Amino acid sequence: MGWLADETGLEKCAANYVPLTPLSFLSRAAEVFPNREAVVYGDRRSTYRQYIDRVTRLASALAAMGVKPGDVVATLLPNVPAQVEAHFGVPACGAVLNTINIRLDANTVSYILDHGGAKVLLCDPQFIPLAVAAIEDMEGEPPIVIEVADDAAGVHDFGDYPEYEDILAAADPDFAWIMPQDEWESISLNYTSGTTGRPKGVVYHHRGAYLNAMGQVISWRITLYPKYLTIVPLFHCNGWCHTWMMPVVGGTVICCRDISAKAIFDAIADEGVTHFGGAPIVLNMIVNARAEDRRDMPHTVEVFTAGAPPAPVTLARIEQLGFNITHVYGLTEVYGPATECTWQTEWDPLEGDARAAVKARQGVAMPFMEPVRVWDDTHIPVPMDGQAQGEIVFRGNGVMKGYLKNPRATREAFKGGYFHSGDLAIQHPDSYLQIADRAKDIIISGGENVSSVEVEGILMCHPDVLLCAVVAKPDEKWGEVPCAFVELKDGHSVEADALIAFARERLAGFKCPKQVVFTELPKTSTGKIQKFELRTIAKTL
Amino acid sequence: MGWLADETGLEKCAANYVPLTPLSFLSRAAEVFPNREAVVYGDRRSTYRQYIDRVTRLASALAAMGVKPGDVVATLLPNVPAQVEAHFGVPACGAVLNTINIRLDANTVSYILDHGGAKVLLCDPQFIPLAVAAIEDMEGEPPIVIEVADDAAGVHDFGDYPEYEDILAAADPDFAWIMPQDEWESISLNYTSGTTGRPKGVVYHHRGAYLNAMGQVISWRITLYPKYLTIVPLFHCNGWCHTWMMPVVGGTVICCRDISAKAIFDAIADEGVTHFGGAPIVLNMIVNARAEDRRDMPHTVEVFTAGAPPAPVTLARIEQLGFNITHVYGLTEVYGPATECTWQTEWDPLEGDARAAVKARQGVAMPFMEPVRVWDDTHIPVPMDGQAQGEIVFRGNGVMKGYLKNPRATREAFKGGYFHSGDLAIQHPDSYLQIADRAKDIIISGGENVSSVEVEGILMCHPDVLLCAVVAKPDEKWGEVPCAFVELKDGHSVEADALIAFARERLAGFKCPKQVVFTELPKTSTGKIQKFELRTIAKTL
Repeated sequence: MGWLADETGLEKCAANYVPLTPLSFLSRAAEVFPNREAVVYGDRRSTYRQYIDRVTRLASALAAMGVKPGDVVATLLPNVPAQVEAHFGVPACGAVLNTINIRLDANTVSYILDHGGAKVLLCDPQFIPLAVAAIEDMEGEPPIVIEVADDAAGVHDFGDYPEYEDILAAADPDFAWIMPQDEWESISLNYTSGTTGRPKGVVYHHRGAYLNAMGQVISWRITLYPKYLTIVPLFHCNGWCHTWMMPVVGGTVICCRDISAKAIFDAIADEGVTHFGGAPIVLNMIVNARAEDRRDMPHTVEVFTAGAPPAPVTLARIEQLGFNITHVYGLTEVYGPATECTWQTEWDPLEGDARAAVKARQGVAMPFMEPVRVWDDTHIPVPMDGQAQGEIVFRGNGVMKGYLKNPRATREAFKGGYFHSGDLAIQHPDSYLQIADRAKDIIISGGENVSSVEVEGILMCHPDVLLCAVVAKPDEKWGEVPCAFVELKDGHSVEADALIAFARERLAGFKCPKQVVFTELPKTSTGKIQKFELRTIAKTL
Repeated sequence: MGWLADETGLEKCAANYVPLTPLSFLSRAAEVFPNREAVVYGDRRSTYRQYIDRVTRLASALAAMGVKPGDVVATLLPNVPAQVEAHFGVPACGAVLNTINIRLDANTVSYILDHGGAKVLLCDPQFIPLAVAAIEDMEGEPPIVIEVADDAAGVHDFGDYPEYEDILAAADPDFAWIMPQDEWESISLNYTSGTTGRPKGVVYHHRGAYLNAMGQVISWRITLYPKYLTIVPLFHCNGWCHTWMMPVVGGTVICCRDISAKAIFDAIADEGVTHFGGAPIVLNMIVNARAEDRRDMPHTVEVFTAGAPPAPVTLARIEQLGFNITHVYGLTEVYGPATECTWQTEWDPLEGDARAAVKARQGVAMPFMEPVRVWDDTHIPVPMDGQAQGEIVFRGNGVMKGYLKNPRATREAFKGGYFHSGDLAIQHPDSYLQIADRAKDIIISGGENVSSVEVEGILMCHPDVLLCAVVAKPDEKWGEVPCAFVELKDGHSVEADALIAFARERLAGFKCPKQVVFTELPKTSTGKIQKFELRTIAKTL
């Protein structure tokens, strides 16, 4: 190994070794960018100096409530400033941040509070009834509840619990942050959405959060002073770690409680938003915005999209509006996105479908990750031929520590020295990934694999279709057949037969949906279509 | 500390922990950017695929010669492709790269070869006589010499030693890189220029090289596909680590053997160079270029300058030409630059002297460093008032491991948990550093401190002055007085008295030079003026 023959006196010491942590970014920003706006929410605007003061007070208040290093602090919050502040304030007292999905049912929230063992819960008044029901259901010690009122949004505190601003006002502004001694210490706990069984608690460390933040600045081609809009919920992979990233470049986080096309266009025009992340459904919302909700675009806005490949037709239309879309891919277990469809200059001349086709690929490893691989069942990489399918596996410093109190699941997920994503993909000859489907989303019809993504991409090209999802429907003859659930645009209509015929002109017969159901599609809080619900419905058709 | 109550199964493993090393950047680039140009030198152009092949062959060849992990491999090379390749090829066989300054005398080179214990020396034919003399002088085992011919530059091999291209051609292209098991392993060994006494061997580790590279992409506001010109010698702080940084963003390294204004303008116009680093003397060279050496600038070129504050007049003139100058500051012990004068948008309206004044400051810590401090003799930070002077001290992951085989000097340098730079500075109220002087460059006249930098800045404004340096001259009455050494522009002339009068109009009397010497200034290989030589001369005047 690379040790010199004599390394006397070359050991780690206070001067040359500092555990990696996103807390360093905020300390530095307080000195380098003290007067720049750090967090904006309507009329509430904090500079970096004010931001660090609020973070310090939060850390102090939590410590004063008895939160010890390694304890868990949970939140049930939309994308309001308190949720942003918790990303630094909770680790600054040595605690571990557990942002809970606000769309979950009380029973699941109860499970998470018990399993994670949260000592404190920061809660928006809108979710106090959910929190109360969840706490009633708990087996263990309930957390101390702190209400985070949002008067400007008309969400006032119940008054039954201490209020966030009161607690901050009473806290010690000179509290010394408890910095990690080891960069492997835990910084956050994110429960997977868990479509089957109980959610699993994914643990992130300070090192990963730091490296992910540095790497995403590079991936996103961010220079100084971005304006970042919080569309990705901060309870989803810590908002893909973007809150940790902003202080590196003196960026401003623009909070957005409720996502709508109007809110997005207004934030771009009024606050100068330059960057945001979002599921394809957000792109769809923008493309289909009503005329009165649109605003002129003062500059190109960079958008990272993940969750599903953006439909070619959506991609083409949103780019005409002045958004540059980068497709990224990841999972909770890899801190959100870990691959990106890095742009190659030889693609510059591509237009229309050809451009959409390259942008629909999940791409290559981000800078902080090792090269991504696609493995067959025996852990051998499949050929990079654009044909052979296998499972996407990840390795690198942006992979979770593991699942909390579930070493069996952790071992299983890490078998062979890579994290197993459960997603099926091909690798093109240029090494770019393209997801065929989630393993469970593949439809096997007459022994042939049908990619639901491919069928959906075709249906999305139909002028009357707003959204669609294709799942397997049990079939006596073929085993499974594709069944399409379709949401039409406002005021549009089309017959099921016409849609099936549209597909048949563009797809092999066995890939065409055999049945079409017109309905509003069930979605998760992050805009992902909940295919498991549709599969349940398809079984009854 | 931030450990969850139950961390069973959350330990480091192959999937989630990879030691940080710049080697990862090149592996990734080989997959993401295989066909982009990585290294260009005249007609020789390597894609990333070819670059990684040559790096692999170099690693294999070194291993075959008996180089073991932890062994030292030295170079005596200008900025040619072999020097670039050595930055990855040497670590890829687990060895430690020792790039030796090609302007040193044989006795010093001999000392370095003995002290570092190099097993192999890659040597340009131009420096073979130097190498031979140095090796003859050695006490220990001499290194195996490999000649790196540069036929295009008319520098042919002597034929007495194996030649680099022959060795690469015979090497194993499938050699498996020896990756660090611990990111604290050593990657390079850089000897300080050592104005007094023997040079000290500064040891860098893989972790620091990785973090520095990531952080400098951000500092330099680099997005995808930069074209980087090698003006900073790669033997100087590993060319400030820029070679390690380029694969992160698919950048191209344009090699430049001999630096001239013509070579710089040609590289910008013909190769599309977007970034380079260089001492202020390089800026001066550009500003004073002959008309026939200039070319039209197709785009703004980003320049990092370090070594001394750029003179206001130079700064103003070079920016008019289409270069954007960022002043950075550091030392060999902190991997080159570790602070930067980060631009604040409220400075946008500044012009002329006001603009130059903010750009002349050494600034704030780069993203991978902890906030920089200025300490008094008792290790207490001086007030950030723009007045109080102290010593600049650094802490962070971009600080060296220490000095090779010199634990006493290492301990001394790190006393109080910070690296002591030996540079005197003030901190402005916005926390930006400004160097008053190297401790030894301060002139103490009648008990008053005179900043040589301040006096030089004034003299540089004189229309006939090309370069100048001000040092202390012993004086019976005042202890010391300022003495100016001045290099005039071609074809210009001015009297000493006129220059002194020019200074007197702009400076307090005790700060004005009492004597002016017109001469060509002695410079180091990196363009730094060698003030210690001038001090010696001043003593004899």
